Amino acid sequence: MEAEALKFFIACVTAAGFGIAIAAFGCGIGQGLGLKAAAEGVARNPEASGKITVTMLIGLAMIESLCIYALVVALILIFASPMTATVTGLLTGAGH
Amino acid sequence: MEAEALKFFIACVTAAGFGIAIAAFGCGIGQGLGLKAAAEGVARNPEASGKITVTMLIGLAMIESLCIYALVVALILIFASPMTATVTGLLTGAGH
Amino acid sequence: MEAEALKFFIACVTAAGFGIAIAAFGCGIGQGLGLKAAAEGVARNPEASGKITVTMLIGLAMIESLCIYALVVALILIFASPMTATVTGLLTGAGH
Amino acid sequence: MEAEALKFFIACVTAAGFGIAIAAFGCGIGQGLGLKAAAEGVARNPEASGKITVTMLIGLAMIESLCIYALVVALILIFASPMTATVTGLLTGAGH
Amino acid sequence: MEAEALKFFIACVTAAGFGIAIAAFGCGIGQGLGLKAAAEGVARNPEASGKITVTMLIGLAMIESLCIYALVVALILIFASPMTATVTGLLTGAGH
Amino acid sequence: MEAEALKFFIACVTAAGFGIAIAAFGCGIGQGLGLKAAAEGVARNPEASGKITVTMLIGLAMIESLCIYALVVALILIFASPMTATVTGLLTGAGH
Amino acid sequence: MEAEALKFFIACVTAAGFGIAIAAFGCGIGQGLGLKAAAEGVARNPEASGKITVTMLIGLAMIESLCIYALVVALILIFASPMTATVTGLLTGAGH
Amino acid sequence: MEAEALKFFIACVTAAGFGIAIAAFGCGIGQGLGLKAAAEGVARNPEASGKITVTMLIGLAMIESLCIYALVVALILIFASPMTATVTGLLTGAGH
Amino acid sequence: MEAEALKFFIACVTAAGFGIAIAAFGCGIGQGLGLKAAAEGVARNPEASGKITVTMLIGLAMIESLCIYALVVALILIFASPMTATVTGLLTGAGH
Amino acid sequence: MEAEALKFFIACVTAAGFGIAIAAFGCGIGQGLGLKAAAEGVARNPEASGKITVTMLIGLAMIESLCIYALVVALILIFASPMTATVTGLLTGAGH
Amino acid sequence: MEAEALKFFIACVTAAGFGIAIAAFGCGIGQGLGLKAAAEGVARNPEASGKITVTMLIGLAMIESLCIYALVVALILIFASPMTATVTGLLTGAGH
Amino acid sequence: MEAEALKFFIACVTAAGFGIAIAAFGCGIGQGLGLKAAAEGVARNPEASGKITVTMLIGLAMIESLCIYALVVALILIFASPMTATVTGLLTGAGH
Amino acid sequence: MEAEALKFFIACVTAAGFGIAIAAFGCGIGQGLGLKAAAEGVARNPEASGKITVTMLIGLAMIESLCIYALVVALILIFASPMTATVTGLLTGAGH
Amino acid sequence: MEAEALKFFIACVTAAGFGIAIAAFGCGIGQGLGLKAAAEGVARNPEASGKITVTMLIGLAMIESLCIYALVVALILIFASPMTATVTGLLTGAGH
Repeated sequence: MEAEALKFFIACVTAAGFGIAIAAFGCGIGQGLGLKAAAEGVARNPEASGKITVTMLIGLAMIESLCIYALVVALILIFASPMTATVTGLLTGAGH
Repeated sequence: MEAEALKFFIACVTAAGFGIAIAAFGCGIGQGLGLKAAAEGVARNPEASGKITVTMLIGLAMIESLCIYALVVALILIFASPMTATVTGLLTGAGH
Repeated sequence: MEAEALKFFIACVTAAGFGIAIAAFGCGIGQGLGLKAAAEGVARNPEASGKITVTMLIGLAMIESLCIYALVVALILIFASPMTATVTGLLTGAGH
Repeated sequence: MEAEALKFFIACVTAAGFGIAIAAFGCGIGQGLGLKAAAEGVARNPEASGKITVTMLIGLAMIESLCIYALVVALILIFASPMTATVTGLLTGAGH
Repeated sequence: MEAEALKFFIACVTAAGFGIAIAAFGCGIGQGLGLKAAAEGVARNPEASGKITVTMLIGLAMIESLCIYALVVALILIFASPMTATVTGLLTGAGH
Repeated sequence: MEAEALKFFIACVTAAGFGIAIAAFGCGIGQGLGLKAAAEGVARNPEASGKITVTMLIGLAMIESLCIYALVVALILIFASPMTATVTGLLTGAGH
Repeated sequence: MEAEALKFFIACVTAAGFGIAIAAFGCGIGQGLGLKAAAEGVARNPEASGKITVTMLIGLAMIESLCIYALVVALILIFASPMTATVTGLLTGAGH
Repeated sequence: MEAEALKFFIACVTAAGFGIAIAAFGCGIGQGLGLKAAAEGVARNPEASGKITVTMLIGLAMIESLCIYALVVALILIFASPMTATVTGLLTGAGH
Repeated sequence: MEAEALKFFIACVTAAGFGIAIAAFGCGIGQGLGLKAAAEGVARNPEASGKITVTMLIGLAMIESLCIYALVVALILIFASPMTATVTGLLTGAGH
Repeated sequence: MEAEALKFFIACVTAAGFGIAIAAFGCGIGQGLGLKAAAEGVARNPEASGKITVTMLIGLAMIESLCIYALVVALILIFASPMTATVTGLLTGAGH
Repeated sequence: MEAEALKFFIACVTAAGFGIAIAAFGCGIGQGLGLKAAAEGVARNPEASGKITVTMLIGLAMIESLCIYALVVALILIFASPMTATVTGLLTGAGH
Repeated sequence: MEAEALKFFIACVTAAGFGIAIAAFGCGIGQGLGLKAAAEGVARNPEASGKITVTMLIGLAMIESLCIYALVVALILIFASPMTATVTGLLTGAGH
Repeated sequence: MEAEALKFFIACVTAAGFGIAIAAFGCGIGQGLGLKAAAEGVARNPEASGKITVTMLIGLAMIESLCIYALVVALILIFASPMTATVTGLLTGAGH
Repeated sequence: MEAEALKFFIACVTAAGFGIAIAAFGCGIGQGLGLKAAAEGVARNPEASGKITVTMLIGLAMIESLCIYALVVALILIFASPMTATVTGLLTGAGH
């Protein structure tokens, strides 16, 4: 039973560690595309830099939210999933 | 029985953690493409920034919804799938 | 028998979690391409923003429908496939 | 026999869940390409928006049909393949 | 014997489900490329929209045919391959 | 012997189902490239639409032929390979 | 011995089915590139359509030949390789 | 028990080491895209270099934050996850 | 001994079938690039079509030669490698 | 116990060696993109070379920091993780 | 001993068959890039076709040489490696 | 014990050999991008070649440093990691 | 012992055959890029063909050297590595 | 013990052979990018060919150095790693 419970923990840390990494990979490239356009825009039209920055920030925040979804799932997997509670209970109980 | 039930939990957390990550990857790039065009557009034509931002927000929301589908499925897998209820019941029952 | 039934559940949650994620990945990029063009178009020709937005929404809805097919299949796999009913029956029956 | 029959069910749900996802991935990108061109076209030439939208809809429908083929195959695999009927018969028969 | 026969069924549904999905992926992108050019063309030259649509439809039909080859093979694998008949015969015969 | 013969059948259906799908993937993209150019050409120069369509059809037919090679091989694998005949003979003979 | 001989047959059909598919994939894209240029060329310069078509046909035939090499190897593997003859001999001999 | 606990540690270091690497990969490319646009912009319009640098820094910080999420998860996995505490307790306890 | 010898035959047909396919894939794309440029060139400058065709043919022949190297190796593996001779000798000898 | 402890060491060196390599891969390409733009900028506008170099250095330092995160994690895994200390203690203790 | 020796032969033919194929893939694309430029050049500047062809031939020969290195290694592996000689000796000796 | 220690050595050399290779791959492409821009810049504006070369060298050195991190980790893994010392000690001690 | 020694030989031929192939793949594409630019350059500016050819040859030689490194390592692995000598000695010695 | 030592040798030759190949792949493409720009530059501005060649050579040397790092590591793995010395000593000692 303990061996299986530890395998569950292994799955949790693997999913958390790689999940947030994969999400950061994609969102990083996405934000890079947005930033690229914004920086080019400011260079071409510095008077509009306020509007451009606001637009960029809205977009970056939307993309950031995608990555935060993955972060939230990762943190739930590490700290607070009901399954983990069940499994930890079994593991502690089995330790007696 | 418990070992198998834990394997089911493992599959749930793996699918949840990687699923939301893969969806965030793709949607992040998609939103980045949209943001890129919007930021370029605001730089080129600052007077139209209101219309551009509205268009961008509609599109970003559509893409966000795709990622939220994956998030919903991930959360169902962690918290509320009927299978999980069945399996937890078996696991708890087996613990007696 | 129970072990096999749980393996079936594992396959269901894996297919559901990854399936919706892969579909969201591709459709997110597809919607991003459409949004990109629409945002550029509004910036270039703000008077046509109504027509552009309508065109974009038609297209985004079509792409959204592709992702919803995958969502429907994922939800069927979790909640309502006839196979699941059969297997749950076997599992519950085996629990007696 | 039951174990093998469940493996068949597993293969069905895996093929259905991933199959529709992969098809949605590709068709989503394809529709995105079409939508991109249509949105650009409407922005450049708003008077032709009717013709452009019709052309786009024909194309999107063709692409949609590809995805629906995959959806049909996925639904056949879940609900109505003759193999499934055979296997379910074996499984039910074995349950007596 | 039955176990092997079910493995054959598993191979059939896997090949059918993934095969049509992979074909739809590629053909969807291909049709998207064609649709993109046609929509751009109609926007640039609305008078030629009839000729462009005809050309597009010929091409889309050719690409559709590729996907239909894969669909036909998938349906043959599910419903009508001579191998399946042989194997089902063996399976039914073994059930007596 | 029967188990091995069924493995041979499995290999046949796998190769047939995936083979035609992979070929359709590549040829679909190839035909899409050709169609794209033809549709652009008709839009730019509608008077030459006859010649363009003829050129396109020649090219599409050449690409179609590549996919048909794969289809022929797939159908041979399912219906008419000498190996299959040999193996079916062994399988039927072993059933006596 | 028979089991091994069938594994050899399995390798033959796998190599044949996937080999022709992979070759068709690449050559399909290659022919698509050539066709694209030819169709564009005819649209730009319809008077030279004869010369362009000839050039295209030479190139397509060269690419076709590459795919036919793979087809020939695939057909040899299915129908006429000396190894197959040897193995079939062993298989038939072992059946006595 | 110890062997399983060490496998958990192995999963932690693997997820931490590869996770931060994958995140750094994607965010590095994303920041490179942003930096590229900023450097081009400064070269084209040196007077706006202040505004461009500010825009770039906001964007780079947003992308940096994505990578830091992954770093935080990696450090939690190595130093401070509650699972690790549980497992270390088991391991130390088992050592007595 | 015979089982091992058949595994050697399996490796030969696998290497031959996939080898020629991979080579055809790459060379097909390479020839497609060359053909694309040649067809564009003839369209732009029909008077030079002779020289362009000669240049194209030299290049296509060079690329063809690469694929033929792979074909030669594949045919050697099927028909004429010294290893095959050795192994066939062992196999026939073992059959006595 | 020792065998498992060595497996933990193996995981550490693998994660460290590949982790820093993957991070260097991505950050190298990212820095290359930035450097490319800066070098082009200096060539186009040599008077602004000071500002361009400063911008480039800020960006390169940000990207460098991403890679250094991975380096830090790699060095922690090799030299200073608390898990390693625990495992080494077990290994040394087991050696008595 | 013979089984192992045959495994060595298997490795040789696999490495030879796939090695030459992978090399042909890459070099084919490389030669295609060169040919593309040369054909475009001849079309643009037919008077320089001699010089262009010479330049192209030098480059194609250099790329050809890369593929020939792989061919040489493949032929050495099939016909003339000292290891093969050793292993064949062992194999023949073991046959006595 | 020795077998496990050698597996640790195997992991070290694998991580070192592939790690430096992967890092060199990415950094090579990154430096190539930078070099490309610098060479173009010198050709366009030879008077600024000094400044361009300095900028290029700064950037190449930054990218070089990324690869050197990986080299340092690789050399540590081969020559000087504390784990290696521990394991070698065990191995030598076990040899007595 | 002999079986293991043959596995070492297998690793050598695999690494040699695939190593040179992978290196030829990359260097072939790299040389193709260089050749492409050189051929375009000669077409645009035939008077400078001498200088262009010299530059191209220097670059091609540098790329060739990279591939030759891999060739040298491959030949060392086949003909002259000290490990091979050791292993052959063991193999021959074990044959007595 | 000998079997394990040979596995270590196998890992060394695999890492050496593939490592140098992967590094050559990436650096070859990187050098190709640099060479491409230099050749284009010489064609556009033959008077600056000296400066361009110098710049190119500096860059190519930097990229070459990356590949040489991998070569050095590969040669260390084959000829001179302290681990190899240890393992060879064990192997020779075990032969007594």
